[in-house]
Amino acid sequence: MPAPSGSVRAVIVTVGDELLLGHTVDTNAAWLGGELGALGVRVVRRYTVSDEEPEIRWAVRDAMGAADLVLVSGGLGPTPDDVTRDAVAGLLHRPLRTDPDVLESIRARFLEAGMQELPEPNRRVAQVPEGARKLPNPVGTAPGLALETGGALVVLLPGVPRELRSIIEGSLGSLLSRHFPGRLPPTLSRTLHTSGIPESLLAQRVRERLPEGTGDVRMAFLPDIRGVDLRLTVTGMDPVEAGRHFEELERKLGPILDPWRFHGDRGDLADAVVVALRARDTDLAVAESCTGGLVAKRLTDIPGASDVFLGGVVAYSNEAKIRHLGVDAGTLERHGAVSADVAQAMAEGVVRAFDAGAGLGVTGIAGPGGGTAEKPVGTVWYAAWYGGRCAVRGERFPGDREAVRERSAQAALMLLLRLLEGRATDASASRG
Amino acid sequence: MPAPSGSVRAVIVTVGDELLLGHTVDTNAAWLGGELGALGVRVVRRYTVSDEEPEIRWAVRDAMGAADLVLVSGGLGPTPDDVTRDAVAGLLHRPLRTDPDVLESIRARFLEAGMQELPEPNRRVAQVPEGARKLPNPVGTAPGLALETGGALVVLLPGVPRELRSIIEGSLGSLLSRHFPGRLPPTLSRTLHTSGIPESLLAQRVRERLPEGTGDVRMAFLPDIRGVDLRLTVTGMDPVEAGRHFEELERKLGPILDPWRFHGDRGDLADAVVVALRARDTDLAVAESCTGGLVAKRLTDIPGASDVFLGGVVAYSNEAKIRHLGVDAGTLERHGAVSADVAQAMAEGVVRAFDAGAGLGVTGIAGPGGGTAEKPVGTVWYAAWYGGRCAVRGERFPGDREAVRERSAQAALMLLLRLLEGRATDASASRG
Repeated sequence: MPAPSGSVRAVIVTVGDELLLGHTVDTNAAWLGGELGALGVRVVRRYTVSDEEPEIRWAVRDAMGAADLVLVSGGLGPTPDDVTRDAVAGLLHRPLRTDPDVLESIRARFLEAGMQELPEPNRRVAQVPEGARKLPNPVGTAPGLALETGGALVVLLPGVPRELRSIIEGSLGSLLSRHFPGRLPPTLSRTLHTSGIPESLLAQRVRERLPEGTGDVRMAFLPDIRGVDLRLTVTGMDPVEAGRHFEELERKLGPILDPWRFHGDRGDLADAVVVALRARDTDLAVAESCTGGLVAKRLTDIPGASDVFLGGVVAYSNEAKIRHLGVDAGTLERHGAVSADVAQAMAEGVVRAFDAGAGLGVTGIAGPGGGTAEKPVGTVWYAAWYGGRCAVRGERFPGDREAVRERSAQAALMLLLRLLEGRATDASASRG
Repeated sequence: MPAPSGSVRAVIVTVGDELLLGHTVDTNAAWLGGELGALGVRVVRRYTVSDEEPEIRWAVRDAMGAADLVLVSGGLGPTPDDVTRDAVAGLLHRPLRTDPDVLESIRARFLEAGMQELPEPNRRVAQVPEGARKLPNPVGTAPGLALETGGALVVLLPGVPRELRSIIEGSLGSLLSRHFPGRLPPTLSRTLHTSGIPESLLAQRVRERLPEGTGDVRMAFLPDIRGVDLRLTVTGMDPVEAGRHFEELERKLGPILDPWRFHGDRGDLADAVVVALRARDTDLAVAESCTGGLVAKRLTDIPGASDVFLGGVVAYSNEAKIRHLGVDAGTLERHGAVSADVAQAMAEGVVRAFDAGAGLGVTGIAGPGGGTAEKPVGTVWYAAWYGGRCAVRGERFPGDREAVRERSAQAALMLLLRLLEGRATDASASRG
């Protein structure tokens, strides 16, 4: 029988009533898709099934028919609804045996956690189907289990995201290159990040600019609440050739994308802001009303942000705006807390309060309450201050409270980035 | 032929390369699962397939064999990779026709958005398969499309989450009760929220407490980084009987759960804190270092939190802790910024600065950098102040930066809740 060839096709099976009932969002499936793509494996389908042995057996059997690699996540834990191990062992006729090494490492973890003895149900986690290869789990008790079946390679993984990730990051690459020699042509991709332009408008302009299409490069528009990513993908190309294709496309798209584009690690605009601050050797403080800490939270999500982020004030009440940001009580009374003047005064005030090189102020009505005819829910004013100049914008953002807050934080960060980069042409002089 | 009976079984099909590649997390599938459960529909499986007509046809055909209701989300938009409409129309032999009403409403939206004319690709969105019922989309251009097939009811929905939600919330309930008369026995569930006890320990104690099992009630443990939920579920019971079952279980589990339990809308501890503050007619300010705005953000996620949340200070630098929170420079030097004394001084300081009735202070090392042998990454001190008493805790949280920050925010909110409820027995007198 000739060895199978061509790219490796994978099916991901995620197991759990909580996924079907919608109590848990399936982040594992997305993360696995990204990891497998980077390893050159094409995920062709995903199935999600309940915690029932017949359903798990159906999904794994069906997946084995459609793919070379079947990844099953969930149902390896100690509780009674964890039946994946039993279902797959039954399907593949592999008796389960207690593995002394796994048992010992589980026992050691329990001792370390201060427990005297191993609870009986946790012993089940040490059961391993005959012939399975164990994949180490550095952060939990259940190891991954790889089973060669003659056809597809079946890999069982715990459902707890950090355990699954840690097993995959440690073992999957070497397992796959051993099992599928010469069959892992990498999928290479490049993502261009934009914020502030709607998907349909961007797609239209791109189509007008590229009437002849994108050749060997697949292009996808990935909108979310923070903006639209353009993902360029090629398969089976060497990196130099792929890079040439990507750069040619980027050059053609430049005039359309540049006003909206930013460069941030993992598509994060907050990362782009931190990098821009560092490049200008300056630091930042933020004053937030409607975003209530979200802008500060996004900046401090970035490891090492502390070298350019000093901190900020969440000033929900008018009194806090006056007391901690030096906003003038008369300004608040004349223009209202949600106004261009107050946004600017907040940005200037927080720059003074933290002796910062740059500042942001955001004030608005996130809803659902608090809107008026003149200032409906979604009305937001935001201001960025840097180097003696202040740029102020007002918008009415659509969506619910979370959407308005996310959009406000993103728009404020984008305004600051433009100001730092000298692209906010309407900024005016400000004392700060 | 007798009418089908029994509970309605659904399969959810989500469509999109971005889902398989892992660029997008499938939040629609989870949300749909929750909505369908509440309507009495049992989701038996989920499939995710790529943006290719044969794959979509395979999934919908297979789902029609396994279910009474097939919900397909994604691929109804204007871009060339949106092919769900064509795939399903082809599978079911329903020619596509441009619907004048849909076309007109799309045109009106574009005019309203300030665009002169409708781009050609957007006209595709107005195509409707013959015999389809249109489900209004109040927030986007593509309507939902319901197709009766003789067997399963097939419903096509856009992939943009807020459009999908808005269609479902507006139309699905009445559609299903018309299509499946008398076949929607509700699934009733109750969720008990805990924070601070690991899943395996909780599961063990519950098992010891309930050696005879849980009878007609299904129990699931749903751990995430913020805590562990216990979900109790019954199907086909009337609400009074279900309530009796739930209450009996809750009573039995009380002694085990009470130390860790909280009551918050959608399982949100921040909501529980807001409710507890309101009940005591007091208000809160927060001082954050390592959580960098996350605690404030979580509190302001709650609509209407402004009546009890005054604001806070994100004090990343030592200087900000001294200047804005009045933390003593000597305390910082003697104990270090990550210490019980500084956490307490931050809580007390923010209470003074905002003239608040309650305060929180959080300081720690979220990583990946900044750890030492004595204070490794994950070391966090947090303090809660209320009514002249202050409770302080120190922990070493496992996980990466995001995990440490999430766990810190959750633990700090739990400490404050206990203090407000008089359950933090080790709190000591403090001037605030």
